[in-house]
Amino acid sequence: MDYLKKLSINMDRFEKNLFELAKIGRNERGGIDRAFGSSEDKSARAWLRDYWTDMGIDVRMDEMANLWGELEGAEKLGKIAMGSHHDAVPNGGMYDGPLGVLMATEIAQTLIDHHITLRHPLSLVSFTGEEPNEFNISTIGSKAVSGKLTVEKLKNTVSVKDGRPFAQAMSALGGDIEKLENVRIDKGEYAAFLECHIEQGKRLEKRELSCAAVNCITGIYREIIRVTGEANHAGTTLMQDRKDALTASAEYILGIEKILRNMNDEEVTGTIGCISMLPNSANIIPETVELMLDLRISNTEKKKTFLQRVYGLQMRIEESRGVKITRTINLDQPHTVMDEQVVKAIQDAIVQVDQPEITLVSMAGHDAANMASVTRSGMIFVQSVNGKSHCAEEFTKISDIEVTANAMLKAILLLDERLDCETKPKMMKGD
Amino acid sequence: MDYLKKLSINMDRFEKNLFELAKIGRNERGGIDRAFGSSEDKSARAWLRDYWTDMGIDVRMDEMANLWGELEGAEKLGKIAMGSHHDAVPNGGMYDGPLGVLMATEIAQTLIDHHITLRHPLSLVSFTGEEPNEFNISTIGSKAVSGKLTVEKLKNTVSVKDGRPFAQAMSALGGDIEKLENVRIDKGEYAAFLECHIEQGKRLEKRELSCAAVNCITGIYREIIRVTGEANHAGTTLMQDRKDALTASAEYILGIEKILRNMNDEEVTGTIGCISMLPNSANIIPETVELMLDLRISNTEKKKTFLQRVYGLQMRIEESRGVKITRTINLDQPHTVMDEQVVKAIQDAIVQVDQPEITLVSMAGHDAANMASVTRSGMIFVQSVNGKSHCAEEFTKISDIEVTANAMLKAILLLDERLDCETKPKMMKGD
Repeated sequence: MDYLKKLSINMDRFEKNLFELAKIGRNERGGIDRAFGSSEDKSARAWLRDYWTDMGIDVRMDEMANLWGELEGAEKLGKIAMGSHHDAVPNGGMYDGPLGVLMATEIAQTLIDHHITLRHPLSLVSFTGEEPNEFNISTIGSKAVSGKLTVEKLKNTVSVKDGRPFAQAMSALGGDIEKLENVRIDKGEYAAFLECHIEQGKRLEKRELSCAAVNCITGIYREIIRVTGEANHAGTTLMQDRKDALTASAEYILGIEKILRNMNDEEVTGTIGCISMLPNSANIIPETVELMLDLRISNTEKKKTFLQRVYGLQMRIEESRGVKITRTINLDQPHTVMDEQVVKAIQDAIVQVDQPEITLVSMAGHDAANMASVTRSGMIFVQSVNGKSHCAEEFTKISDIEVTANAMLKAILLLDERLDCETKPKMMKGD
Repeated sequence: MDYLKKLSINMDRFEKNLFELAKIGRNERGGIDRAFGSSEDKSARAWLRDYWTDMGIDVRMDEMANLWGELEGAEKLGKIAMGSHHDAVPNGGMYDGPLGVLMATEIAQTLIDHHITLRHPLSLVSFTGEEPNEFNISTIGSKAVSGKLTVEKLKNTVSVKDGRPFAQAMSALGGDIEKLENVRIDKGEYAAFLECHIEQGKRLEKRELSCAAVNCITGIYREIIRVTGEANHAGTTLMQDRKDALTASAEYILGIEKILRNMNDEEVTGTIGCISMLPNSANIIPETVELMLDLRISNTEKKKTFLQRVYGLQMRIEESRGVKITRTINLDQPHTVMDEQVVKAIQDAIVQVDQPEITLVSMAGHDAANMASVTRSGMIFVQSVNGKSHCAEEFTKISDIEVTANAMLKAILLLDERLDCETKPKMMKGD
C-alpha cells in the first residue's frame, strides 16, 4: 500500500501526448478545429486508437463511435471507467476534453508501467461529440450509452449548416444509429465513472488551487423570450409614440443582468446568448425581438427567486413600454449530484496531494452528468488560467495538471479499494 | 379670379380612383404588395397610363420608367410638375405614394373639366421605385432625373433577394439603364415640383389639422456601431468577470433612447433598427454586436449635441464594461430645404381652405428632396390616422384628403400666377 501511495504519473510523457494530440486540427489562429464528424475528429480517434493499442489495451468502438479501451481487472467486478471527449468547438482549445482522455490514458499507462492490475476492470473512454455541434446534440456519446437518445430522434436530426443527416456523419465515423440500443450501459456493468476536466472558470485560480472535486453538475434552464412591440416608420414616429421591441429588450437584458449580479453567487450565472429581430431594417422600428436566456443554477429556491424577480421585471416593462413579453421554457435540465463515494475518494486523494478538500459545482454540462444515471459518477476539476475555454487562449499549467493527475490516480486506487469491498482485496502482478 | 377661388376638386371621383388603384396588389391581409419591378408595379402603371390617356393627356414613359403626363401651357414657361409614386413596401398601405399621384391627377382633371389652361405647362408624374426595395435603391426615378445615379452603379446593382440584375427589372418595366442620361432634367425645364404625401406621423393628428406645408425634408444620418466584448463560456464565467457585448449594447441602446427623449423635439428621432450578434449561441457570452443607428435631424447644432452625448455614453460604457465600441458613418444625407416660393404658395393656399399655416419637417425622405436639386420643390402633408404607414393599417380620412387636394389645387394656381411673373398673365380657355 505504501508503494501505491508513492505511485505517480509520468508528466513528461503526458505533456508530450497532450501536445501531440493538439496538433490535430490546430488552425492558424492557434485554436483547435475538431468538430464532431470532421476529418479532425477521425484523425484524433485514429491517434487514440493507435496509442491505446500500442499500450497493449483492447480498443473497441461502439455503434455510436465512442472509443473504449479496456484493461482486465483481477476480480469479476463492475468496471471503473475514466475519460472525457476529444472533440472541440470551432477554434476551441486543446485542454477541454483531450486533457481528460489523456489523463485517463496516463493513469492507465502508469498502472501498466508498474504492473498493477486493479481489482476492477479499468476502462478508458473518449466519448463522441460532447461539444455543441452542427446537429444541435451535445454529449452525444454519453447520452447514447445512458439511454437518453432514440433512433427516431437521431433519424430526424440533420445538420443546421448543410442539411446532412446525422446518420451519415455517424456512419462516416464508423457508427450506426440503427444500432443505438447496443451501446446502452447495463446497470451494474460499471462500478464508477471519473472525468477530469478543466474548470473553465476562475474559482480555482482565485483560490490558487490546482484542483477540486465536483459535487454537482449545474442544472441548465433556458427560455425563449419574445418581446413584441409595433413596427413603424423610424423617421416619422415620435419618440414618445413608439413601442420599440429593441429598447424594451435592452431594458429586459439589463434588468436580468442586475438581478443576477445582486444574487452575488459564484454558482449562479445567466446569459442572453442569442438574439434575433424583425424586421431588422434600418428605417423601421423593431417589431419583435427574440432572446434566449441560459440560466445555470443548482439551488431550487434560488431559481424560484430568480424567476419571480424576472417576472416582476417583465410586468414593469410591459406596463411602461406597452409591449408584450412572452416566455417559453426551452430546456429545464435538472442539476446532477455527483456520487457521494466518488466525491469522497476524490477529496481524500486531493488531500493526499496536499490540496485543501473544497468542492465546486460544475457550471457547464459534462459527459459525467449523463454517466450519473448508469453508474457512480464523479469529476475532478483542474485550474483554468483566466477561466478561459472554448477559445484558442484556453490554457492550463503543466504543474496543475501534474497535481491533478496524481490526485485522480490516487482517487482511482481508493475507489478500486473501497467499491464492492465485500469481494476480495486486489492483487498486484508486480508485487 | 373669383371663379378660380371657388374652383374645387371632385372628391367622389378622386375617392373612386383611390380605391380602384388600391385593388392592384391588395393582399389577403388587407395590405398592398406593389414593389418596384413586380407585376403589380406594371399593372398600376398600365392603370395610370390608361386613365391619363382617357383624360386626353399625353403620356410618356422615360428610360427609367417614370410615367409622365403632360398638359400644354398657354405660355412658353418651365413646367409645373405634380406627383409622387405608385409603388409600395411589402404589405404596405394604399395612401403612401398613390395618394399624391391621384391628387395630381384629380387636380389636372378639375382644370380640364373647367377648360382651364395654365400659363405653365402642367406635368403629372409617377416616379419609379420610391420605396426601399430588393435592389437597395429607393427614390430610383427621382434620383435618376436629378442626376444622382450613374449607369455604372446601376449595372452593378443586383437584387439582394435573388441576384437578378437591376437592369433586368428596369427593362421588364420598359426602361433601359444604358439610357439613364436621357432622363436628366435640365435646369429651367421645370418651374416647380409639388408633392402631396401622407405625413406618416402624428403631428397633424395631434393638432387636429388636415394638412400643412413641408418646409424641410429631414437629413438622415446612419452609423454602424460595433461593440466588442469577449466570448466566453456562459456557464463557467462568473457574472463579474464578463465582457458581454450584448449587455453593453443594451446599455448603449437605452442610453441613446434617453438622450433622444431628453431632447424632447418632435423633429428629432433616432432608431436602432438593425442588430446582429456573434457568435449568437445559447451557451456563449456574446463577443460582438453590431447595431445600425438611424438619426433624423435637420438642425446642425442639435445633431452636434446629440453626437457629443453619444460619445460620452460610449466612453462611460467602454470604461465600466471593458468593451470596445467603434462607430462608422454609413450615411450622412443632409436635410433639404423646400423652395421658399413654393412653401409660401402652399401656406397661402392652406389659409384659403381655412387651415392654419404651420409648417412641418418631413421626417421621411421623398422624391421631392431629389427634385429640389433641379427645380423649386415643395410638399404638402395630409394627416395620417394614428401616424401609421408602411402597413395595412395606413389610413387617411376622405375629409382630410378633400381639404388637402383643394389646398394643393389652389397652390398650383398661385404658383402658376406667381412664378415667372415677368411674362404675360395667364389665359383661360373657359372664360
